[in-house]
Amino acid sequence: MSLLVVGSVALDSVETPFGKREQTLGGAATFFATSASFYTQVRAVAVVGEDFPQEHLNFLASRGIDLSGIAREKGKTFRWKGRYTFALNEAQTLDTQLNVFQSFAPVLPDSYRDSDYVFLANIHPELQGKVLDQVRSPKLTAMDTMNYWIRETLPQLQKTLRRVDVLFVNDAEARQLSGEHNIFVAAKAIMAMGPKRLVIKRGEYGALLFDQGHMFFCPAYPLTEVFDPTGAGDSFAGGFMGALAQSKHTSHGFLRRAMVHGAVLGSFAVERFSLDRLRDISDEDIRFRFSEFQRLTEFSELPVE
Amino acid sequence: MSLLVVGSVALDSVETPFGKREQTLGGAATFFATSASFYTQVRAVAVVGEDFPQEHLNFLASRGIDLSGIAREKGKTFRWKGRYTFALNEAQTLDTQLNVFQSFAPVLPDSYRDSDYVFLANIHPELQGKVLDQVRSPKLTAMDTMNYWIRETLPQLQKTLRRVDVLFVNDAEARQLSGEHNIFVAAKAIMAMGPKRLVIKRGEYGALLFDQGHMFFCPAYPLTEVFDPTGAGDSFAGGFMGALAQSKHTSHGFLRRAMVHGAVLGSFAVERFSLDRLRDISDEDIRFRFSEFQRLTEFSELPVE
Repeated sequence: MSLLVVGSVALDSVETPFGKREQTLGGAATFFATSASFYTQVRAVAVVGEDFPQEHLNFLASRGIDLSGIAREKGKTFRWKGRYTFALNEAQTLDTQLNVFQSFAPVLPDSYRDSDYVFLANIHPELQGKVLDQVRSPKLTAMDTMNYWIRETLPQLQKTLRRVDVLFVNDAEARQLSGEHNIFVAAKAIMAMGPKRLVIKRGEYGALLFDQGHMFFCPAYPLTEVFDPTGAGDSFAGGFMGALAQSKHTSHGFLRRAMVHGAVLGSFAVERFSLDRLRDISDEDIRFRFSEFQRLTEFSELPVE
Repeated sequence: MSLLVVGSVALDSVETPFGKREQTLGGAATFFATSASFYTQVRAVAVVGEDFPQEHLNFLASRGIDLSGIAREKGKTFRWKGRYTFALNEAQTLDTQLNVFQSFAPVLPDSYRDSDYVFLANIHPELQGKVLDQVRSPKLTAMDTMNYWIRETLPQLQKTLRRVDVLFVNDAEARQLSGEHNIFVAAKAIMAMGPKRLVIKRGEYGALLFDQGHMFFCPAYPLTEVFDPTGAGDSFAGGFMGALAQSKHTSHGFLRRAMVHGAVLGSFAVERFSLDRLRDISDEDIRFRFSEFQRLTEFSELPVE
């Protein structure tokens, strides 16, 4: 089924203990759409500047992504520069140049308005709300956010939270948003703000799904090196929403399956710089890694010897 | 099958955000033996002082634990005093009085020498080795250790590591012992030191089992409050070794099942001070929580709607 993403397309400069890259393809919508494209056709809304390399758009098109919602505007593309240290998964932002992203006001092409599944990547919560105004009757809406919006625009964020079905946050954001340290108490407090489903990402410790009375504990894939954590969260969301749109369902069992596909895509994304690993994988790689997640977690009261 | 534990029996004074207790029943062997006693008969080797309340021994006996290896010696019982802050699971030790535990030299009663499953709780690695000298042909041996022994007695620890089948550590200890930050790299390095199986406990994030080529990701039970973390690790080991001894197996599927029983007992242990919650639970409570772990982790590629 149709899947819409609205968010950033960027040029990232990244330094990790394994090396550095300058102005490589990045952005939340980019990681999301590429990950989701393994499951379903994705419609993207974003803005790029005059300097944005055509080859990047060609790559996205080659993934079957509908780019009619990507505007090219006067000025430079959004640039982000960050560094990861060895022990930390949290990026240290060295420089942010919003450029054309500064005045981003997402307008959906008419052909996008019937989208069934909608993902609002990390942008101003008011803009997220304006996207919701433009879709007709989505089956499932989801959003991401970040510490900045929680701190600076809480009332607007709370308003948007009341309108979406699923919120994606990491554990630090869950604690910040709820004011609760215990992650299960935090989850309950956040769901009282609106979203009936909540995904809390915990990096190397996996991710939790809260779906009304149900809870699902999804492991992280055992990686001996996290080459570049950039895009892990958006790739997780892309695998999740893509698998869900492909399944045409929104019920609990399908959300669990979607969590694992999210973890699969997130784990691939961090194996190389930028989208390099995602460019490389096949449906067969995804199937195989999904089965590794099964092997990683299965147990029974009466094991076969 | 027979299960032997050698370790401390103590009187703990504990402060947590939820309250405090003075000189309550504690010690690694106590938590281990009580947890394991839900699965099999446990044989304990420990030392207590003249001041150790008979009611505590009566309680252990009521759990079917063989106390013939518990010596009562002149002097005071081992005392530990610690505090947990709200955000941290790590105890801050306020006071340690080794007392009779200072000169603990574990001697196995003859009737213990045929023990099939052996757990060496956190004591000097040389003493752990001396216990191994006294058992005839165990089916499976396991040990715990801590940062102090890793720092102060590494050569002796490495010697003992070469003699056991399973090592239990937490993630900080795994990093310290291996000198590796990535937990999967650390696991590989530790297994190269001897133990073919390794359990890494990660508190609220669950626990990992490494068993030669296999890996198992065990979740933590979602607790909205950790009342008193004391004894969590030893209760985990008790549930693990107890379930394993009960199964009469040591093969991989049974190790996975044992991990979940470890997580079940560890989760109960932290719900009250001291052993208060473990005194309270039934086999039915354990079965029910085990099934909750199943529900927490199960997923499939083709879910039922």
